[in-house]
Amino acid sequence: MPIYQAPVDDAQFLLNDVFHIERYDNLPGFSDASPDVLAAVLEEAGKFCQEVLAPLNRIGDVEGCTHHADGSVTTPKGFKDAFKRLVDGGWIGISCPTEFGGQGLPTAMTQLVSEFLCSANMSFAMYSGLTQGAIAALYVHGSDAQKKAYLPNMIAGHWTGTMNLTEPHCGTDLGLLRTKAAPQADGSYEITGTKIFISAGEHDLAENIVHLVLARIEGAPEGVRGISLFVVPKFLSNGDGSLGPRNGVSCGSIEEKMGIHANSTCVMNFDGATGWLMGEANRGLNAMFVMMNEARLGVGVQGLAMSEVAYQNAAAYAKDRLQGRAISGTKFPQKAADPIIVHPDVRRSLMTIKAFNEAARALVMWTALKADVARRADDDKARMSAEDHMGLLTPVIKGVLTDQGFANAVAAQQVYGGHGYIAEHGMEQFVRDARIAMIYEGANGIQGLDLVGRKLGKDGGRAVMAFFNEVQGYIKDHAGSEALKAYVEPLGAALGHLQQATMWFMQNAPAKPDNAGAGGTDYMHLFGLVALGYMWCRMVEAAQAKLAAGADGAAARLNAKLVTGRFFMERVLPETAAHLARIKTGAASTMELPAEAF
Amino acid sequence: MPIYQAPVDDAQFLLNDVFHIERYDNLPGFSDASPDVLAAVLEEAGKFCQEVLAPLNRIGDVEGCTHHADGSVTTPKGFKDAFKRLVDGGWIGISCPTEFGGQGLPTAMTQLVSEFLCSANMSFAMYSGLTQGAIAALYVHGSDAQKKAYLPNMIAGHWTGTMNLTEPHCGTDLGLLRTKAAPQADGSYEITGTKIFISAGEHDLAENIVHLVLARIEGAPEGVRGISLFVVPKFLSNGDGSLGPRNGVSCGSIEEKMGIHANSTCVMNFDGATGWLMGEANRGLNAMFVMMNEARLGVGVQGLAMSEVAYQNAAAYAKDRLQGRAISGTKFPQKAADPIIVHPDVRRSLMTIKAFNEAARALVMWTALKADVARRADDDKARMSAEDHMGLLTPVIKGVLTDQGFANAVAAQQVYGGHGYIAEHGMEQFVRDARIAMIYEGANGIQGLDLVGRKLGKDGGRAVMAFFNEVQGYIKDHAGSEALKAYVEPLGAALGHLQQATMWFMQNAPAKPDNAGAGGTDYMHLFGLVALGYMWCRMVEAAQAKLAAGADGAAARLNAKLVTGRFFMERVLPETAAHLARIKTGAASTMELPAEAF
Repeated sequence: MPIYQAPVDDAQFLLNDVFHIERYDNLPGFSDASPDVLAAVLEEAGKFCQEVLAPLNRIGDVEGCTHHADGSVTTPKGFKDAFKRLVDGGWIGISCPTEFGGQGLPTAMTQLVSEFLCSANMSFAMYSGLTQGAIAALYVHGSDAQKKAYLPNMIAGHWTGTMNLTEPHCGTDLGLLRTKAAPQADGSYEITGTKIFISAGEHDLAENIVHLVLARIEGAPEGVRGISLFVVPKFLSNGDGSLGPRNGVSCGSIEEKMGIHANSTCVMNFDGATGWLMGEANRGLNAMFVMMNEARLGVGVQGLAMSEVAYQNAAAYAKDRLQGRAISGTKFPQKAADPIIVHPDVRRSLMTIKAFNEAARALVMWTALKADVARRADDDKARMSAEDHMGLLTPVIKGVLTDQGFANAVAAQQVYGGHGYIAEHGMEQFVRDARIAMIYEGANGIQGLDLVGRKLGKDGGRAVMAFFNEVQGYIKDHAGSEALKAYVEPLGAALGHLQQATMWFMQNAPAKPDNAGAGGTDYMHLFGLVALGYMWCRMVEAAQAKLAAGADGAAARLNAKLVTGRFFMERVLPETAAHLARIKTGAASTMELPAEAF
Repeated sequence: MPIYQAPVDDAQFLLNDVFHIERYDNLPGFSDASPDVLAAVLEEAGKFCQEVLAPLNRIGDVEGCTHHADGSVTTPKGFKDAFKRLVDGGWIGISCPTEFGGQGLPTAMTQLVSEFLCSANMSFAMYSGLTQGAIAALYVHGSDAQKKAYLPNMIAGHWTGTMNLTEPHCGTDLGLLRTKAAPQADGSYEITGTKIFISAGEHDLAENIVHLVLARIEGAPEGVRGISLFVVPKFLSNGDGSLGPRNGVSCGSIEEKMGIHANSTCVMNFDGATGWLMGEANRGLNAMFVMMNEARLGVGVQGLAMSEVAYQNAAAYAKDRLQGRAISGTKFPQKAADPIIVHPDVRRSLMTIKAFNEAARALVMWTALKADVARRADDDKARMSAEDHMGLLTPVIKGVLTDQGFANAVAAQQVYGGHGYIAEHGMEQFVRDARIAMIYEGANGIQGLDLVGRKLGKDGGRAVMAFFNEVQGYIKDHAGSEALKAYVEPLGAALGHLQQATMWFMQNAPAKPDNAGAGGTDYMHLFGLVALGYMWCRMVEAAQAKLAAGADGAAARLNAKLVTGRFFMERVLPETAAHLARIKTGAASTMELPAEAF
């Protein structure tokens, strides 16, 4: 069975030593979050994930969900009990508003715990993750009555949430959607239509499921400007949190898919279901975007989570499996062969994954702290700049962490050789589960397009200029440091590539938008590499400072940061030049062939 | 259901226009292979694959193989009949020696047909593919009696073949193997041991299965110098091709794995089975290498095959699926949305795959023709140079075509968005099936190591110098061509990177072999890019010549070559610089951490 150990130490290093969470003490909820409290929460979460969720991961894959003739769905053995323990532990609401029963801890904590949950059992974690997204949308766009009716039960975990966007003929292009909403005399709407790919759409883990549904009010304009968001609970709420009658929404079938078998992916039929408008009519996409941004960050975390658990297993296997001798000379003459971790190519794979995971975790932390500033700070300017950061980094985190997370799961599987292809070792499940993260919540090509097509130029490029200024400023401030030279110099070169690419788009995309479209994915990855490189500089700096101050028992771990950061600079970051070269060739050869030539 | 159309036109373009197969007419078997004959064979093979094998692909995945209590294995519904048709068509022996019932056609034809078979149904194609590998080993290393006893039935397809190398504790490091061979009075051996991961080890497709088995003769030296190769048939042969009694070899179980479900991956138990030594005692690895090189080329073809079929489906979907509008302006105002092939990022994916597939097919053809020269030419020098080429290019083809073939299957799946994750569309099966090719017949890290550790320095670097001379000579010969400039110049830069990397190894690996080990995978991919780039130059040159000569109905196809080649140069080839940069950082940061740090 695969192993898993939650990276609690690394999380604390990020919170305390790299991002100095104590500096955010002016934000509501942060002052209660002392290092000790955070450490205890992380330890407890890690334990739950390791002991309860990880053992259910393969069972969930093998058993999957079962759709019954009456429309009900049963989750795999053990899931119901585990979910009850998750709910009893209060884990869903740890960063939710205290006024509705949440614990108000930093969002950064939810993201860290979410990483642990996903590493241990991604299918399971989706049930709570989607609920957190629905909570966010309700909190921002719901009326007071809606908040009162839904939030306490959702934050407690008694009710779960879903997002209902996709229809058979429309996914990315929501303007095409056909689900109808007919206004009723009592102010509610009658919702009719079919939604597909609805994760956690039906299950037996909670007493109610709150569907957030995009639909078109009768007579509304065509396209995306005629879409509204509705809250459509499985059981109607009596308004006080108690359950009313069953609503006209049901699961028609569940999909047979590549992975995440333990999460029910449902076709949902709305047969004149009762729904209530959430936010303004015809502005549903706006409200949904709140949930989607939350979800996209969460999906990025899934990519990291799968990369982390796959890495841990590959590293353990590489230390255990005896095969061949080190080319630099036998390392363990007393054994029949050396463990395969002595082989440079195995190390190359492990180091590549490790160098990504640690920086990706930092990038998520950095952005999650900005999320807290955006939601909790008093200062308008601080909130705006934090929102800029999130808007810019969300597509990068979603796209890069899931693309690379999947690639890393594949690389970790490769370390197992033939055994990696065999189901019982669990490595191939990580690959299959990780694959979905590149697709849902906006396929990664859409993330690239969002980045170059919307986020770069937004508000006159304010967000990207702020990002450049921060990284450039860091490089300048540390240009004289001998200790950081091996890190800051490559980062400077990479930032230069990113700036050149940005400039190239400014000069070449306005007249020919295909030039931006053809470079979107490369730009997203180039951006991600610079952001991860910057995280490495920050982590190395913090590790060096801690080592200089006397690291006690942590010296080995901190020294490893210095080496891993160097590996990133030498072996991962050079890719920026290739991305730039591709971007600068423009769209010509990409777009020239007629469709029939394919 | 997924579509598949065998690329017969492209195959003919390669055979006739790029590699001028008529120039090989001095080789036995080639003079019978007129363009018309080859075209007819390819058409017929394509038809069989499209109509018989492709429809069984998903059935095979869903149903898988069944292991019965008596040790027998049943293949999925339809496989037995399809295999009979393959056998009746004489497909297994098309390139086999005529003296044993083969058709003696060029090996290039077997590789092309093998691509078609794998695209249509990779699991199915493995049964015949492994048989072809066993035939090659028997033909080269078997005694006359062994050839007579086995080859006619295997070439006819009545008997299939397997390779038995791996044991639970040893895969890559065959020196550890424990299967024993005890000499018997009659000259045979009693074989005892357990082998795992034996593809096609047991099934119901043929009346007999000929296992080639590595084992250690009692008293033989430890390590790889004490390994011998044995032929161990499921049913003993009476020597005249008729079946004798059942041998003591049986399938203990079949593995549950990520993909290729319709191929039985067996644990094989040898319980004092009767085997006969093949070739010299203790020189079994040498004999097995013949089979392995054959198999490695074949596995590279599997990578290409999965990339091709995944591409065809993604292209069809991209032309059909309506979603969003072209960012350069609406293309189909009469439709609800434009087909997604208008989107630059979708095109980028399709072009990337297309540019790889066509060059990879050329690289396989080029190498397969060398295989024929190596086996059939009278001229010693020609044979030696062809063998050099094969030795050098085999790890490149195996490693690069399977790594990239898998990446392409993933990219093609991505074009489908959420639908790509759903089993019924078949895209996720391509990904799962393609995954194994990176692992078996030597995991790709081993291919990189084989290339930098063995092939580069072999015979004073004769093979690699010949490769450099050929590509360099081509670049020089065409330096003045305006028409080829956009292709030859980038190839020159890429070759420069490859030469620098080679030089760097020469200077830095002898004293520190880890420097080669840490760069092996990058070097393999760098080498592959240069080889594929060279193939593009050759193809573009041929297309230009044909266009100039009046291309009749083929102009669109030939023009597409020019554009696709340019895309390769602009968008794929720049990666060589990143590989070089990584290689030149050496092994330091890769190897520095102690094992406990992982």
